[in-house]
Amino acid sequence: MSTFATSPAEDTSSSAQPPVGPLDITVSRADLLRELTAAQSVVERKTTIPILSNFLFEASDDRLTITATDLDQSLRTSCPAKVKKPGACTVPARKLYDYIRLLPEGEISIKLQDNHWVQIRSGRSNTKMVGMARANFPQVPEFPAVGATKIAASALRSMVAKTIFAISSEESRYTLNGALLVLKPESMAMVATDGHRLAHIERLGESLSGVTGEKKTLIPRKALGELSSLLANTTAADESADFLEFADDDTTLFFRMGGRVLTSRKLTGQFPNYEAVLPRDNNKFVIVRTEDLMGALQRVAQFADERSGAIKIRLEQNELRISSQSTDSGESEDIIETPYNYDPLMVGFNSSYLIDFLKAVGNTPEVRLEFKDSQSAGQMRPEDGNEDQKYRYILMPMRI
Amino acid sequence: MSTFATSPAEDTSSSAQPPVGPLDITVSRADLLRELTAAQSVVERKTTIPILSNFLFEASDDRLTITATDLDQSLRTSCPAKVKKPGACTVPARKLYDYIRLLPEGEISIKLQDNHWVQIRSGRSNTKMVGMARANFPQVPEFPAVGATKIAASALRSMVAKTIFAISSEESRYTLNGALLVLKPESMAMVATDGHRLAHIERLGESLSGVTGEKKTLIPRKALGELSSLLANTTAADESADFLEFADDDTTLFFRMGGRVLTSRKLTGQFPNYEAVLPRDNNKFVIVRTEDLMGALQRVAQFADERSGAIKIRLEQNELRISSQSTDSGESEDIIETPYNYDPLMVGFNSSYLIDFLKAVGNTPEVRLEFKDSQSAGQMRPEDGNEDQKYRYILMPMRI
Repeated sequence: MSTFATSPAEDTSSSAQPPVGPLDITVSRADLLRELTAAQSVVERKTTIPILSNFLFEASDDRLTITATDLDQSLRTSCPAKVKKPGACTVPARKLYDYIRLLPEGEISIKLQDNHWVQIRSGRSNTKMVGMARANFPQVPEFPAVGATKIAASALRSMVAKTIFAISSEESRYTLNGALLVLKPESMAMVATDGHRLAHIERLGESLSGVTGEKKTLIPRKALGELSSLLANTTAADESADFLEFADDDTTLFFRMGGRVLTSRKLTGQFPNYEAVLPRDNNKFVIVRTEDLMGALQRVAQFADERSGAIKIRLEQNELRISSQSTDSGESEDIIETPYNYDPLMVGFNSSYLIDFLKAVGNTPEVRLEFKDSQSAGQMRPEDGNEDQKYRYILMPMRI
Repeated sequence: MSTFATSPAEDTSSSAQPPVGPLDITVSRADLLRELTAAQSVVERKTTIPILSNFLFEASDDRLTITATDLDQSLRTSCPAKVKKPGACTVPARKLYDYIRLLPEGEISIKLQDNHWVQIRSGRSNTKMVGMARANFPQVPEFPAVGATKIAASALRSMVAKTIFAISSEESRYTLNGALLVLKPESMAMVATDGHRLAHIERLGESLSGVTGEKKTLIPRKALGELSSLLANTTAADESADFLEFADDDTTLFFRMGGRVLTSRKLTGQFPNYEAVLPRDNNKFVIVRTEDLMGALQRVAQFADERSGAIKIRLEQNELRISSQSTDSGESEDIIETPYNYDPLMVGFNSSYLIDFLKAVGNTPEVRLEFKDSQSAGQMRPEDGNEDQKYRYILMPMRI
């Protein structure tokens, strides 16, 4: 596998004349399956444009390049191949992926035949798949020659995992269908909100070459999902993949890592002014064990009104009470003992939003809940003493 | 847990006057969860009769008895309990099961309150669930006092696993919606068919007390599923549970094991005369490795016509060829080398029916395929040299 290219000039997958002609190659099943696995999630299952169900295969210079796109996103990756004849073809993505998974380890030969049929042979297995003309496959944007920023892969992965769940799933709220990435020379942040809750993570002490001032980029939800896979897939195998390269142009976002390039069409529009909703005087707080809070919330949430998911949080002298009730199922209460010495307080929240946050903090042993009053947003944070990574989650209250 | 009762007189869960009054008990979470897990699969998720979504709890004599029914099936089980006040109540099954799963280990107190509400308390968790009147819970049939047959649990479990998948899923084919259990003094058999394929397993060398002549019983599919769970759940923990007791009356089948009683309404009607379709002169055969055949079938099946699933089997000199084609996806062939010296033969089958059989034989290394000609049913058998257990699978051919 080619090593991670720091200078754009080393990127062999682009720029060169695309190969044409009747592709004829041999490739190892393990190599091929690994790259198909990476590329197949970009392929739309239900598309009205048949060519988008296909992978584009391009073979030249001892490599097979695989491209998948749904017009919004694209992924381009490659693996070593014995290229008997350079060329290109397209193959039904899902069928091919399933078939290659079912083949035993070994060499696989792939050959373009008449009428865009593609022959796949391995051992005593012989299959011809109905492909489509290479010319129908849409053009995929190429990683820009200049202007990329290197971002630590593990940091970005953590930021995506801690915000992606707060993205709105309402298609109509267009500018909320993504997360905002904010890059500065020495810090980066990611924010997502659906109008009811907001997840914000900021990492200090970064060193982002090529960033001057503040660069804000809205990354669509589907691209964030693909980005998670890109970040997860490549780091384990490849030490050079500690960093991801990020770039953009007027219409497209580009992410490159471990030889794979992910692109995404940009979301246009203005992300809301999230800084205005960050609470500044939530001065009543409790610290609780994450596990205790999760258990209590999950139990009590079962008896919340099904539509609203509303539960009630009540803070009293050294006690956090969580309760719910619904006419259908009954009522439930859990009590957690924890130091609390401010005025009593009662506030309602959507229980699943609270649970989402606890899932995102993972195995951080304690979390801190900060409140002002029953009409104001609550703020939740991991109590992990990590000064370089500030993670907070803001939740609008519910009337209860 | 009470030991397995061989004499009906020892069965404490039935006969005695059912307890009434405001139940008040304490039970260990592990005991309760184990029995709820066993009982909850009988509860219908979508029922129009609200009481059937509930468990019936009855407490007396240091035990809590739990009953679930969907009117066709019922399951009755019990666990030790500290009974402060004997009595009965009903509790929403799914809600309770989910709630108990989410509680930490420890003692749980359960108490009937006014208006059929049931209070569940554990540690600092306190919940009230909306129950229903005990009087609404339907009467569940009781295990007959005499006439039960003991069947080895592991043998029955194997028979169910090897036939259940061949049961028809067409609701309209009423008498095919179950498997036929055939008991004789020294053997037992189970048969299931959907009219396209038939699975038949016979075990010799059994010793079935209380069976004279031949006893044929049609067991509905859902009851077989519950029976599998009953057989699987209890053997691990309880050595006395090597045997299951089986009985029936005019309307109901009864299965008792490890203190649990499963009942099922009988299917009425005549099971087809399956003996007439068992092939007698399939004298062309091959023996293949199960794993090789499974791999080849799964690969080739992907290119079969989606509706029919048809694949073609061709036997030639020391070769088994499996092939398929469809206009949408292409064509595929796999070749397995294996001794074969009869006349060449070609026959079509539904690939998923073949795969079902290979899944059922599990890790038996080899299977034998027996054919007559392309118009006759094929027969498949595990090539395991097991003379005490004869398993065969008959498949109608397809026109190809």
